[in-house]
Amino acid sequence: MRCFNFAPGPATLPLEVLEVIRDELFDFRGEGASIMEISHRSPAFAKVIEEAESGIRTLLGVPEGYDVLFMQGGGHQQFSAVPLNLLGTRRKADYIVNGTWSRKASKEAQKFCEVNVAALDDGTRAPRQQELRLDPDAAYVYYCDNETVHGVEFDYVPETGGVPLVADMSSNIMTRPVDVSRFGAIWFGAQKNFGIAGLAIALVRHDLIGRAGPACPVMLDWKTYAQSGSLFNTPPVFAIYVSSLVCRWLLRQGGVKEMQRRSALKSGLLYRTIDESEGFYRTRVQKDSRSRMNVTFALRDESLNEPFLAGALERGLKGVKGHRSVGGMRASLYNAVPQEGVQALADYMKEFARRHG
Amino acid sequence: MRCFNFAPGPATLPLEVLEVIRDELFDFRGEGASIMEISHRSPAFAKVIEEAESGIRTLLGVPEGYDVLFMQGGGHQQFSAVPLNLLGTRRKADYIVNGTWSRKASKEAQKFCEVNVAALDDGTRAPRQQELRLDPDAAYVYYCDNETVHGVEFDYVPETGGVPLVADMSSNIMTRPVDVSRFGAIWFGAQKNFGIAGLAIALVRHDLIGRAGPACPVMLDWKTYAQSGSLFNTPPVFAIYVSSLVCRWLLRQGGVKEMQRRSALKSGLLYRTIDESEGFYRTRVQKDSRSRMNVTFALRDESLNEPFLAGALERGLKGVKGHRSVGGMRASLYNAVPQEGVQALADYMKEFARRHG
Repeated sequence: MRCFNFAPGPATLPLEVLEVIRDELFDFRGEGASIMEISHRSPAFAKVIEEAESGIRTLLGVPEGYDVLFMQGGGHQQFSAVPLNLLGTRRKADYIVNGTWSRKASKEAQKFCEVNVAALDDGTRAPRQQELRLDPDAAYVYYCDNETVHGVEFDYVPETGGVPLVADMSSNIMTRPVDVSRFGAIWFGAQKNFGIAGLAIALVRHDLIGRAGPACPVMLDWKTYAQSGSLFNTPPVFAIYVSSLVCRWLLRQGGVKEMQRRSALKSGLLYRTIDESEGFYRTRVQKDSRSRMNVTFALRDESLNEPFLAGALERGLKGVKGHRSVGGMRASLYNAVPQEGVQALADYMKEFARRHG
Repeated sequence: MRCFNFAPGPATLPLEVLEVIRDELFDFRGEGASIMEISHRSPAFAKVIEEAESGIRTLLGVPEGYDVLFMQGGGHQQFSAVPLNLLGTRRKADYIVNGTWSRKASKEAQKFCEVNVAALDDGTRAPRQQELRLDPDAAYVYYCDNETVHGVEFDYVPETGGVPLVADMSSNIMTRPVDVSRFGAIWFGAQKNFGIAGLAIALVRHDLIGRAGPACPVMLDWKTYAQSGSLFNTPPVFAIYVSSLVCRWLLRQGGVKEMQRRSALKSGLLYRTIDESEGFYRTRVQKDSRSRMNVTFALRDESLNEPFLAGALERGLKGVKGHRSVGGMRASLYNAVPQEGVQALADYMKEFARRHG
């Protein structure tokens, strides 16, 4: 039986996507073979990657002058790729560090350049615009739009005064409209809101491609992907296929505006449950920075953690345990998590608080 | 309907593997979610990656002092990773260049070191031991054990006099026993004989790990994987799962010795068909270097290429067209290609030659 899956990533997929995978598994659209078994240079796969790219362009309204790149290696590969591709002749970059992922990105960047920490927070909030100490000589400004470990999300797009802005949107892409034209680059892993592990996608302003130095490893150079339609070598065919199906599903559901509406409903329900629990549950995250994707909370009485998780599991509510580095609880509410799952979790939280409060 | 699939990679999978994928698609072994939807840090996935690793160790008899690393980025990522990890304080590496893949590897290595071409051939043979001009100061000796584009395979393991030997075995891993102890490192993409695109695996002698410099991108440093059991970041979960199923299948079939037997039968049948065609079909590859995996051949009369391919397709024989860089025909005979498929292709070749000879 399928559970309600609040895993932080890899995360739940729309059931409809799994159904298409099943239906096409042995004979992909008349090819006589599975999508996993056909050439990445076949017309059949060309249609798949086209559907994924055009889906991304439609869903996010990606402007003409941006390339859509399909890559491997996960977020950490992009942590290296960002400085390798964007430093050019500059030696410095700005990083807003307010959680695990932006901290890791800034650490990797230090291999390649001087990192100016433009703002620092330990996972309670997204620093405000007026706090940012930006360096006008920075090659770019980097931030993570949604920090999954602490559950902190930006509610605004930083203004950088013309310096290219780079965002890691791995965990909240496709959950609200984005004005891509404000960014030099946006990248995201697929395994939370856009498919499965093994695929990272970048939207890069075209003039920022081609700046990598001669010693940049070929698969870290964004130009490699931009010049070949992401077919320089064998791409992760199956992962791109799954993302093409997620695009279809998102378009049928009403696109990112509808996802924004649902995300507000789902996360609002859990935050309300926390706020109205009279301290039984609490969250460290400030109200203006609460993530719509990862609702983190702790029980006042930590000795109740294990019973809380055991009871959740009994009700088919899985993946609610917090990240090992912070403890407590975390419910990840990506697009494919249905409203009824969140309602079931909220109901359980209230019932548990009544019983143990 | 499923065809006989001679694609060079991504390539055909054992039907039994696809059947397990189907059976476990909605509820992976009682998890209430698909393998694509569960955490890479869950006990359920730990068992999967353990099964893949122990399968590789058993199938290839990997000695104790070797790490098994699960990576992303394809072969080209390893083209960069090999010099970045193995150069240490040295400045030179030996490359045997006898086809498309070894040429590409040597080209990428030139970003990082001086490349000594230890032997050169344009895709007709594997250079012999006595021809190798090895540099005793080389950090390593590199070669590609099976060149898929031209269909050239080594029938021996080069002797390097103590210099670490590195082999790309992407296209012939798991098709014959390998004495891993003779190698510093063996790496292979999964999408031919071991699973699907999006996964590259390396077997590395433990003392060779940890030599990468401080500016090595984190996901190119083999140490990143060795120290974390390949769980430093989210790995390509589904691709590793498929490889674990391929391990199961290989073990049930009788392991790599049985695959060696079948490969000899399958490729022998096609080469005999070519040799006995009185020049209607021919291959450029010398007899001692003929690939058991990729049988390349041309029709004497090239104007028959299109009718030959069309007729093959009518009989459900797919993927027989040669690589775009060399033309002609290529039948890839990876482990999952059944004997009856090869028999059907040989029968068709004979019939076609009779009709047009």
